[in-house]
This record gives sequence, structure tokens and C-alpha cells, in this order.
Amino acid sequence: MHITGSTVLIVVDFQGGSIDHIPDGQQPTADHFERVAMRDRAKALISQCRDTDIPVVWIQEVHKPHLQDIGRELDGSEGPHCVEGWEGTPIADGLVPTADEFHIPKRRYSAFFGTELDIVLKAYKAESVILIGGFTDICVLYTAIDAHQRDFHVRVVTDIVGGSSKQAHDDALEMVRYVQRNSLVTSDDVSAWLAQQPALV
Amino acid sequence: MHITGSTVLIVVDFQGGSIDHIPDGQQPTADHFERVAMRDRAKALISQCRDTDIPVVWIQEVHKPHLQDIGRELDGSEGPHCVEGWEGTPIADGLVPTADEFHIPKRRYSAFFGTELDIVLKAYKAESVILIGGFTDICVLYTAIDAHQRDFHVRVVTDIVGGSSKQAHDDALEMVRYVQRNSLVTSDDVSAWLAQQPALV
Amino acid sequence: MHITGSTVLIVVDFQGGSIDHIPDGQQPTADHFERVAMRDRAKALISQCRDTDIPVVWIQEVHKPHLQDIGRELDGSEGPHCVEGWEGTPIADGLVPTADEFHIPKRRYSAFFGTELDIVLKAYKAESVILIGGFTDICVLYTAIDAHQRDFHVRVVTDIVGGSSKQAHDDALEMVRYVQRNSLVTSDDVSAWLAQQPALV
Amino acid sequence: MHITGSTVLIVVDFQGGSIDHIPDGQQPTADHFERVAMRDRAKALISQCRDTDIPVVWIQEVHKPHLQDIGRELDGSEGPHCVEGWEGTPIADGLVPTADEFHIPKRRYSAFFGTELDIVLKAYKAESVILIGGFTDICVLYTAIDAHQRDFHVRVVTDIVGGSSKQAHDDALEMVRYVQRNSLVTSDDVSAWLAQQPALV
Repeated sequence: MHITGSTVLIVVDFQGGSIDHIPDGQQPTADHFERVAMRDRAKALISQCRDTDIPVVWIQEVHKPHLQDIGRELDGSEGPHCVEGWEGTPIADGLVPTADEFHIPKRRYSAFFGTELDIVLKAYKAESVILIGGFTDICVLYTAIDAHQRDFHVRVVTDIVGGSSKQAHDDALEMVRYVQRNSLVTSDDVSAWLAQQPALV
Repeated sequence: MHITGSTVLIVVDFQGGSIDHIPDGQQPTADHFERVAMRDRAKALISQCRDTDIPVVWIQEVHKPHLQDIGRELDGSEGPHCVEGWEGTPIADGLVPTADEFHIPKRRYSAFFGTELDIVLKAYKAESVILIGGFTDICVLYTAIDAHQRDFHVRVVTDIVGGSSKQAHDDALEMVRYVQRNSLVTSDDVSAWLAQQPALV
Repeated sequence: MHITGSTVLIVVDFQGGSIDHIPDGQQPTADHFERVAMRDRAKALISQCRDTDIPVVWIQEVHKPHLQDIGRELDGSEGPHCVEGWEGTPIADGLVPTADEFHIPKRRYSAFFGTELDIVLKAYKAESVILIGGFTDICVLYTAIDAHQRDFHVRVVTDIVGGSSKQAHDDALEMVRYVQRNSLVTSDDVSAWLAQQPALV
Repeated sequence: MHITGSTVLIVVDFQGGSIDHIPDGQQPTADHFERVAMRDRAKALISQCRDTDIPVVWIQEVHKPHLQDIGRELDGSEGPHCVEGWEGTPIADGLVPTADEFHIPKRRYSAFFGTELDIVLKAYKAESVILIGGFTDICVLYTAIDAHQRDFHVRVVTDIVGGSSKQAHDDALEMVRYVQRNSLVTSDDVSAWLAQQPALV
């Protein structure tokens, strides 16, 4: 993987709360195993970033229980989501921001929309961003496009992003590739690149 | 078509200059006829909007010949485009903003990014926007999403938007429909709705 | 006081933590009494807004202890300020956001800069904003100007805003009055206006 | 003058059209001579910037004759202003953008509000901005503050900015100095600094 200048890892809406938990009397599904495996890849990547002084920034969609801040998000395919206090709203188990890392709530899809993300990336003098999280076709896509429009080099880690459907995931990745031809990478690509970076002393 | 509150028609990057012109010695292609037909549908819709007091706002992507403002747009699938002075950069023949209408240049994909569009929509107290133009999967899609994030009701006129490919056009429309389920309309739908509006006295 | 349309009260950086506390062995100063009196006027106004269904939005400047998000704020007249964990950073004692109210952190002066405030005001369909807090000449002024640029009617409550100095406070209020001639009001004006609003049932 | 990194000169609303012209039968006023002298200093500085490869960016406030885009700007101390087609709206005689320079219309006070200025400064990899134009206490001040909030080093050329009054000019410069202590410079300071820059080959 080739990447340019200072780089920041952005974890987009990697929520879901207690994703390790399997309710009593239920069998784990293929979907469960996939979600846990993706979380484990995220965890390993975040850990390697921290060891290499690549800042990690956390984005979390949240809405008030009264839903006055939900905008037009109920006019589409989703019902109320990411409501404060609901069990799926916290960041997925096993992924924990440190006190030094920026943990940014958002009310819309793009991580740049109505947030301090631009300020934070400027603080880190970032030229490139690596994206993981979900949905590939909603929050990750629109964050990638907004990063592109702000002149960042964008890398989306294709095996650590999940879509609202397999087809939507594929379509969105193709859209990201359309605007930046080298933007699709795997977690192995990023890991190999990180291994070449100077370690923190 | 159902639509809410004050409405504005946004013509996104309907560029191409002399699209009626067929170079000497060439035969018109199917693509040529399709482009001209779409322009004619746009022209009719714009005319009907003006008769009904629906404001028309014009967006045009432009870049300086020195390309310093092109950002990351050369990192993707397109070469230099919409350069000042190039023959395809002007708005398509037959479509002409009036002096009273806002004609807004932009440097990126979304018509909201680094432009006065938000100011203009607020000036018109717009609650809904109707989008025509191109590409469906780039400037129209990202403008639609940004309008959605700003709480506008969005209507995309499916037979007056064109994509970078047929597949990309279809994928993008599906993405718009995902976020607002009633957002896809035809020019006939809009025309019928306009016919029900009170005429200007 | 005349005011237009839906109105929101914005509490800007009313911070300072334990402002009631007088350290052992010290005498309360005039400055102490003034700060407490202003807080009490704020408290009464907030309470009256809640009783009248005027939404209250809370803004709080915060910076990480590592100060990477401080931008150019150390190039001026102030040292590090509003750092997480410092005693003066919390909202002043006696002023407590409810769970339903938006409590918005910010990294810069204007409450609109890199925050969700625009989203929140749109959610409330606000046309007017009432500002209290501090400093009159920094965060209140630049929030007032940004509100003005976004077409809000602005009211600054002159006896519930404090400046970096008396002169700077006066100069800033004059600047707000320059851009909106009816923008300067007293807490008594607002209270009388609130008393005329229909009470919550 | 000390300045950091790539620098851009921003000419803010240096409008007024035919400022050299003295109507028949009138005597030139002190105000006339002052305006012309300031324009001449601006002209010299712009010329020296061009010789030294410091990009010049032009900002011009404009409003449509129908004034729908004027926002709340009639609620203050000014009547309609900067209207397209009015004689004082064009950039002042003698100041002429080149085709390569960005010439950015705006609808509000801050040169960043609803404009492409952020894109343009990013294109130039600017770290510092030098401001000239007017009014010191309105468009220059709010542009300076927005530049500061975006982490730019700001330099305001005190003898090439004019205020809505002498007092307002002085108050605004003090406000800029409050946020960046080294921000106030003279045209001689800038000229001496430019003379030290490597000339274009």
C-alpha cells in the first residue's frame, strides 16, 4: 500500500454494543461470527496504529430518545437507530477509545457533517485517512467522499467495513474506487504498511 | 408526486456546451439523440417551473486551466474536466439562466461543498429540492445526500439525470431511494405536480 | 422585546465550575459577587425558558490535556484554557443541562464552528436565538455573527454576558448592534416576553 | 514581520468602482484622497506579491437586485449594498484580478461563509493569510477570525484596511490582536518581508 503524508485511522460507527454476547438458548449465527471476526480485525489494526503513532479517531452516531435531531433519517429504509441508551448504540465491545483519542458523536451520515472532524484532522496535519466501520454504503461512503472533497487521500479497508447488504457494500466500494483509484485496501495491506513505519520510542 | 413546502429546482452540472452540434462528416449517434432529448426534457421542466414561481438554481462545475483547484479529482477515473475555456464546460445549449436566477460555480462534486447553495436555499425558504443533471452517481448523488443531511426533502428526476455508466446510474438512484423512499420521480410526475400549483398572476 | 418565530436559548461557555466556592481564608471579591449574580440571572432565565417550552442549548469549550486541538488559540492573549479535567472547565455550579437538552462541546470560539449547532437549530425550526454566557467579545460575539450570517434573529442579553474586559464587552455589544439594530436586550426584557408566551400544559 | 509557511494575500471587498472619478463641479475631499492613497498602497502590495509568487485571492460582496440573498443584512446599520449593477459594487478602479487568480463572490461578511475560499487556500497549501480591504470591523474582522479558527496565521495590514468608522476600525484591530498577538502589520512591514522572499525565476 502506498500512502501519502501524515495518516489518521477513522473508526466510523463501529457500534453494536455487546456483540460477543449470545442470548441464552440461541445458537451463534454465521452473521455473528462474521461480525466478531471483523471486530477482531479492527482491534488488531487499532492496536498496531497506536504502536506506530498513527492517531485513531472515533466516530459514533447518536440520537436523543426524543428523536428531534433525527432529521430526514426516518424517511428512508431505516427506523430509529443509534438512540442514546439503546443496547446497540455503544461502540462494539472490545473497542475502547483512550482518553487521548478524539471520540466524536455525529447526528448524520458523513463523519464531517456537523462535527469537529475537520478540526481534529487539521490538528494532526493529516493528509491521508484510513476508514473502517459501517455501513460501507452509508456512513463510510459519505465520509470517504467528504474526505476526498477535502483533498485527503482515502483508504477504505475492504474487510473491516460492512454494508447494509452485500450488493450495497460492493456498489459503494466501486464508487470510492471511481473517485480515488488506489483507495481500496485490505487489512493485510495496511498491516504490512504499518510494519514498515518507524516504531514509537 | 407528493412534495413538502417551498420547492427549488436545482440544475446540477448540465454542461456540455454545443450539444446540438454534429461535427461535419459525422453521423449523429444514439448517445447524441439521448443527450438532446434529455436536454429538451430539462428545458420544458425549467420553463414550467418558471411559470409556477418555483425558483431555478444553476450549478456548474469549473476549474481553472492551471488546475490548482482540482483537488484529488485526478486521482480517480476522470482526467481534467470542466476547465474554463474548454468547449464542454458551458451549460448545454438551450439552457440559459435568467439574470434573477442564481448561477453557482463549484469546484467539487456536491453542489453544497464550498458554495453559496445553502444561503440561496435559505433565501427561498426551501424545504424541498428537485434535482436534474449529471452525473447521477457523482454530483447528483452527493448533492442529494448533502441535501438529505440538511433536512431537505429530495426528489431526483430519473429521466433527466445521466450517469457515468448505466450501472452506476442505477446504483446511485438506489442509494438515493435508500435514504428517502419517495425520492425517485419522473419528469411526468413533476410536470403533473407543477400543473396543480397556482400559476403566477 | 420583539422576536420572530421559534426561539432557542443558547448558553455559551457559561463555565467556571465551583463559582460559589470561596477558598478558605479568603474574602469574597466584588468580582465573585458579580459572577454569582450573573449565574443567578442565567438560572432564572433558563428556568423560565423551560417553563415556556423554549429549548435551551448548551455550549461548552473543551480542549484535550495534550492540547493538540487548541489550534492558534495560544497565539493570542490567553494561555491554555477549558482543558478537560481542570477545575474551571465544567459548566458553572447551579446550571445543569437536562437529559433532553443538547449539550455541545466546541473547540473554537464560534458555537457554530465544527459543531452540531446548525443541525440542532434546524431540528427546533429556530428563527431566533437568544445568547447568554461569555466572553461577550469572543465566543458570544462570534456566535452572534455566525447566527446573523445564517439568517437568525439574534438577541444578546446584555446583563448575562461578560467580557474579557469592560471595554471589550462594550465594543462587542456595539458590533452586534451594528449588524442587528434590535439585538441588545436585558434579562428583564426577555423575562417579560417569556411571561407573555403560552405556558406548557 | 515574521510569517509562517506558504502565504496568500486576500483582498477583501476592495470595492467602490470608479474611485478616481470626481463628479463635475465637486472638489475632492480628504476622504477621497485617503481612499485613493489606500488603493495605491494596495496596488503596490498586490504587484509585489505577484512578483514574489504569493498568490492573490479576490473577495467581492455581491447581492442580486431582487435582494433575496441579503439575509439579515438590512436589519442593521446598512441599507442595500453591493448590489449587482450599482456603481460602487465593482472592485475599485486600478485593482484588476488576473485570469489565473481566484475571484470569489460572497453573500455575507466572512470571506469563508458560503464560498470556495477554504478550497482555494488548501489548493495553495496556505498556512498564513495577509488581509487587506474593508470594512476593518465587519468583513475583514470576521474573515480574520474565521481564518484564525481554521488555524491560519493571520496578518492584517493596518494601513490598507478601512473601517465603518475610525472607532470601529480601532476596536476591530484590537480584537484581531487579542486572538493573534503578532497579527497587526503595516504595508511597509509586508513589503520588507516580500523583498526578502526569493524572486520568481
